[in-house]
Amino acid sequence: MLKKKNRLSAQAYIDGVLNGDRMVLSRAITLVESTLVSDQQLSEEVMEAVLPYTGKSIRVGITGVPGVGKSTFIEQFGTMLVDQGHKLAVLAIDPSSPASRGSILGDKTRMEQLSSDKRAYIRPSPAGTTLGGVSARTREAMLLCEAAGFDVILIETVGVGQSETAVKGMTDFFLLLMLAGAGDELQGIKKGIIEMCDALVINKADGENLEAAKKARREYANALHLFAAKENGWNPQVKICSGLSGHGLDAIWEMVQDFAEKMKFNGFFELNRSAQRVNWMHEHIRYLLEMKFYTDPVIKQNMGEMMEKIRKGEVSAISKAKEFVDLFLHSKDQ
Amino acid sequence: MLKKKNRLSAQAYIDGVLNGDRMVLSRAITLVESTLVSDQQLSEEVMEAVLPYTGKSIRVGITGVPGVGKSTFIEQFGTMLVDQGHKLAVLAIDPSSPASRGSILGDKTRMEQLSSDKRAYIRPSPAGTTLGGVSARTREAMLLCEAAGFDVILIETVGVGQSETAVKGMTDFFLLLMLAGAGDELQGIKKGIIEMCDALVINKADGENLEAAKKARREYANALHLFAAKENGWNPQVKICSGLSGHGLDAIWEMVQDFAEKMKFNGFFELNRSAQRVNWMHEHIRYLLEMKFYTDPVIKQNMGEMMEKIRKGEVSAISKAKEFVDLFLHSKDQ
Repeated sequence: MLKKKNRLSAQAYIDGVLNGDRMVLSRAITLVESTLVSDQQLSEEVMEAVLPYTGKSIRVGITGVPGVGKSTFIEQFGTMLVDQGHKLAVLAIDPSSPASRGSILGDKTRMEQLSSDKRAYIRPSPAGTTLGGVSARTREAMLLCEAAGFDVILIETVGVGQSETAVKGMTDFFLLLMLAGAGDELQGIKKGIIEMCDALVINKADGENLEAAKKARREYANALHLFAAKENGWNPQVKICSGLSGHGLDAIWEMVQDFAEKMKFNGFFELNRSAQRVNWMHEHIRYLLEMKFYTDPVIKQNMGEMMEKIRKGEVSAISKAKEFVDLFLHSKDQ
Repeated sequence: MLKKKNRLSAQAYIDGVLNGDRMVLSRAITLVESTLVSDQQLSEEVMEAVLPYTGKSIRVGITGVPGVGKSTFIEQFGTMLVDQGHKLAVLAIDPSSPASRGSILGDKTRMEQLSSDKRAYIRPSPAGTTLGGVSARTREAMLLCEAAGFDVILIETVGVGQSETAVKGMTDFFLLLMLAGAGDELQGIKKGIIEMCDALVINKADGENLEAAKKARREYANALHLFAAKENGWNPQVKICSGLSGHGLDAIWEMVQDFAEKMKFNGFFELNRSAQRVNWMHEHIRYLLEMKFYTDPVIKQNMGEMMEKIRKGEVSAISKAKEFVDLFLHSKDQ
């Protein structure tokens, strides 16, 4: 599948994306997700050209454990947004399968209503490889969506800490979906993630769950007071909602807008994005260094044998790493 | 503090470590944790020399949320081990403060009994910086402890997914401490971490908690059946214990020994360590590439101005990353 190379010209990608052509947008995202060295230059050319047209959306990261109702939430929340006239893009990261890449085609069918809605664009984002990683590719997919005219980007992530950190590092607003009836969880399980959040939203606040959700809201609101105030002056909010009935979703969107307004006013909106850009550069430097290293002919030629020796414990991993890096940098001399 | 350079000779480090001199061991760990370029060579020389004397311990990773009683568990478990004649080293990672480095001096006083016990060695391990990261330095600290004759290494970690993955990647046995009365947690919160574990241990199984712990043990044991069998043939165990009273700790140690015996018999013990060595090489390659990049005179000279432009959005992060990497590799030509 990696061999399939059905590429457009750079200009065709650029025009298509800027015209909001979804088919081309999808192909452009596939291009930037490609790990083929031969796609590198084309990918960079496209990204460079669309960059001036990016940045105008509000970027919202959404996380929560499996079972919390993320799909239903995004389905209803997204439908509300497009009904209000927004152009919505949803990017979903699947950190659970870094090896298989692109394993979550199921995601597309998960949000049936929204994925058949022409006002929304849903894109599952593979978790990436050692060369690159989650964040670099997802960020580029996000920028392509912005260039294509989408003004609200939802980036969904599941699971443990690593992907959350990556998504936090590329969004304006970070929302954690939770369930009522937690109790013990408060004392730490999600502490690292709770601290990163701009809002905790207790989902499934409907029917018999409603009272428990209200109770949980009070508890979390109290708990949030324990954390240090954020530099940007924003106090993380606790909301309840029902992804199923849609109740409370409007208040969540109002909160996001309120956040964006306040942050733009106090300058932290741009400050956050500036810091994210600098981090992005560092990430890309890492990506390029590794890419150039591992695709270097001299390195490729010797890597197999050396890995075998390291596997057997015949040579030390650190000294060989040093030798290889020196070899790589030296090979540039010639 | 980073400027303080009170270094020994390579031979003095090597002799001291191999003789089991704790003072020198501590200084050697400080040396390998150093991010000073000037320490790099000395550090490598010491590591190379001690490597043949490493690998003979059993390496146990211990994780669990704050409040689960890790310190008390390690205190009692560790005391039991040294009473049995083992030489025990405890390395504690603090992922919560990547910025401040070495912030957890408090750890030393946390385990009062054990830290004053001459048969044990406790070392807090700072979370590391962009150049290096948690795993590289902690792994080297672990190897130094092995070279100094410690035959059981406990590596403690807290918090979200990233540090757990790192610790899993350098240990033989990975143990998750939990509390009873979880319920909802089962459905996913720690799923990513539960899947990595060789044992779930429900702590604080004492007094009024005992029945709840037993119930939780049944529930987790049932839940573990849902996961795919591990390649190495080991079925993750669920145990209960009381770090406070010490009850159940002997059974945990028996389990670890049983694991090691089985894995050595079926070859997965060495297979796992081989794979870890290969990963270690890749991690070290990444570290060296970045270290050489960021300390390159040409890069250092231009980085400040470029970061300012990226911060302001005047230039694109990816094109500048590319330019810099090319500049770096080109500067090696001269």
